[in-house]
Amino acid sequence: MKQTRHPPIDEDRGAAGGLLDRRIFLTGTLAAGALSSSAGAEPLGVQSWMSVPGAPFTAYGQPSRFEDKVVRVWANPPNAPGTGAARTPLHRLNGMITPNGLHFERSHSGIPDIDPDAHRLLIHGLVKRPLVFTMEALSRYPMESRIAFIECGGNGGQLYQKDPAPLDLQGLHGLVSCAEWTGIKLSTLLDEAGLEPTAKWILAEGADAAGMSRSVPLAKAMDDALVALYQNGERVRPSNGYPMRLLLPGYEGNMQVKWLRRIKATAGPTMTKDETSKYTVLLPDGKSLQFVFPIEAKSVIAHPSPGLTLQGPGLYEISGLAWSGYGKIAGVEVSADGGKTWAPAALQQPVLATALTRFRIPWRWDGAPAVLQSRARDDSGYVQPTRAELIARRGSKTIYHFNGITSWSVAESGEVKHVYA
Amino acid sequence: MKQTRHPPIDEDRGAAGGLLDRRIFLTGTLAAGALSSSAGAEPLGVQSWMSVPGAPFTAYGQPSRFEDKVVRVWANPPNAPGTGAARTPLHRLNGMITPNGLHFERSHSGIPDIDPDAHRLLIHGLVKRPLVFTMEALSRYPMESRIAFIECGGNGGQLYQKDPAPLDLQGLHGLVSCAEWTGIKLSTLLDEAGLEPTAKWILAEGADAAGMSRSVPLAKAMDDALVALYQNGERVRPSNGYPMRLLLPGYEGNMQVKWLRRIKATAGPTMTKDETSKYTVLLPDGKSLQFVFPIEAKSVIAHPSPGLTLQGPGLYEISGLAWSGYGKIAGVEVSADGGKTWAPAALQQPVLATALTRFRIPWRWDGAPAVLQSRARDDSGYVQPTRAELIARRGSKTIYHFNGITSWSVAESGEVKHVYA
Repeated sequence: MKQTRHPPIDEDRGAAGGLLDRRIFLTGTLAAGALSSSAGAEPLGVQSWMSVPGAPFTAYGQPSRFEDKVVRVWANPPNAPGTGAARTPLHRLNGMITPNGLHFERSHSGIPDIDPDAHRLLIHGLVKRPLVFTMEALSRYPMESRIAFIECGGNGGQLYQKDPAPLDLQGLHGLVSCAEWTGIKLSTLLDEAGLEPTAKWILAEGADAAGMSRSVPLAKAMDDALVALYQNGERVRPSNGYPMRLLLPGYEGNMQVKWLRRIKATAGPTMTKDETSKYTVLLPDGKSLQFVFPIEAKSVIAHPSPGLTLQGPGLYEISGLAWSGYGKIAGVEVSADGGKTWAPAALQQPVLATALTRFRIPWRWDGAPAVLQSRARDDSGYVQPTRAELIARRGSKTIYHFNGITSWSVAESGEVKHVYA
Repeated sequence: MKQTRHPPIDEDRGAAGGLLDRRIFLTGTLAAGALSSSAGAEPLGVQSWMSVPGAPFTAYGQPSRFEDKVVRVWANPPNAPGTGAARTPLHRLNGMITPNGLHFERSHSGIPDIDPDAHRLLIHGLVKRPLVFTMEALSRYPMESRIAFIECGGNGGQLYQKDPAPLDLQGLHGLVSCAEWTGIKLSTLLDEAGLEPTAKWILAEGADAAGMSRSVPLAKAMDDALVALYQNGERVRPSNGYPMRLLLPGYEGNMQVKWLRRIKATAGPTMTKDETSKYTVLLPDGKSLQFVFPIEAKSVIAHPSPGLTLQGPGLYEISGLAWSGYGKIAGVEVSADGGKTWAPAALQQPVLATALTRFRIPWRWDGAPAVLQSRARDDSGYVQPTRAELIARRGSKTIYHFNGITSWSVAESGEVKHVYA
């Protein structure tokens, strides 16, 4: 009897190309087979590391030396080693949390070496009582924690280009990460200073050499903004704003000012260099959208993705990340035939607003060429557009806020590439 | 008019000693005052780090050099540098996630340096088809993520002693941490192997030189056990089981075998050295409780705690961690008068089963001596006992599963000490 290489089709859901029902995760009924070997199953050999005492304790642990490819990569102009962006290796990670050592970073003049005892946070402008906070003073205030993604406004910018960039997930979309941030509600500190009724915006300024600064509507500052002191439990990393950064859940990364030293209450936006010369969306007619703050719903497939070559036909898990600056991810659909048919993926709980959400769906690859895509939907009802739809609306002169669908082609060889489809 | 130093009393809730209503977190009505300075509020000086370009990017980031006290500490016997336990500095962290570099570790013969390409996972015993998995094979299976605490069964053991150990939170309770773990459900792999009806337990064995091994009831193995490959997004750290560990949500840490290399389905427990000579609870009558698996509900106050001296009267946030191996934390109450009166703390969302839960309550310290305690309750209805209640039930011959209430005394000087109260 000839063994068919055609995949099962989920008729009910209309998805072809080998995508399996996500309920497989709930029932546990999986007949993967052939992924493991029963030849020579007993006994296991005694490896060299079992015959000698292992390494001693360390004060601060590091990853295995065998994981030395799991690193950030970056590009920056000559003579400005700290200017540019270092990208998270999303294709080598799993789950929703980004470990602190791999959180992406975007810096405009390198990472300042800030002494927290000398650092101050000033709150001034349209307030009744200007205040200066030391770290000691801040540490006594009530805090909150929030698992939140941060995405650079320029993440995915290469997908506006005419031809698909021959890059991997890290190179294309590695400027998004997710951590548990803990800090003081900015509203608490603004209440302490006493806002004047004329205050409608704030200016947030960093203590880096670039003096990075952005304007934020007061409504956001008083809603869920945090002055974050902790990142995944420990103090915020230098590359992410030590000793404190502004967290604006769901807003583009550039506004979430690192090395925060100054909050000024203002009547209107300050029109800083960072929100006029940069971080505006240039439209086809030559005008620019300014103050495009929340990140629109987006998703990417991480496994498989370029660089992770499939090892022959059979069962795989397709998994990836979805996020929205407008709320929670309500659903993610996956296509294995370039968008013709779609199947719903399982969402890893807990699904949190403005956090990365991991989606998963089993896939039985038949060995034929395929094109993988994912499409996210958030709880506002917004659906992630195709690349063509996004460009039809916005043109392709900008590099910001790309949230169109990303496509991976899978060749018969198992090689995965970035394509437009 | 003389300013009173007496604290407000939350009459409705019957808590004295300056504990404030947790609803302060929800309403945002906080009049902290006096924590900041309005003197010289403008302008801020330009610090040295703002006048030079900052540091360049790094492939794998590290904490600030100013945080070099935020490290694990350990004690181990002479000539066995990898035997013992390294403790998480809970008093210097915030939130629920423990960063990977600071996750506690308990090792019985050091940390093996395992080459993942040479490592194998064997599933055998009472199965229809013994299987050997490579990392490559495992990476294709459906995965799940779970934020879960792991606590060493011996954590807090010093509190069985007659006199209070002069230690800080790290020294007393630092053998508990929390991470997002991602891996393959063990049930998926056992289903692949096909369990014989006679299989009722499994044996899990590690690839360290100690050959650490424990027996686990099959019901747990088939319920929520994971073969964890990822820890907070990246591959599991060597000190926590690289390339894979067993995760048994809520069970004592020793069972969550690191460097997992073998699962054997068995008819009964294997009675390994690690579950007979150790990890049994010695009772007053000389008998021992064996197979005490889940961690009972417990909580500790992290801020303030020994080593974190209060800087004068005024507002503080009391915060800490609560957890239960039986489910979700349903509530935490805090006392500032040694357990006479209690006030409910706020629980940081999301509250997840078998994960650390951060609790918080504002406290206006009047400068008088105080004794701080926390008391957790889980959704099974179980309430964390006082130390006296626990010892009355269990005696004090054991070092395992201490979950009684911990007490911190606060002196007029602001110094915080471990006491029995």
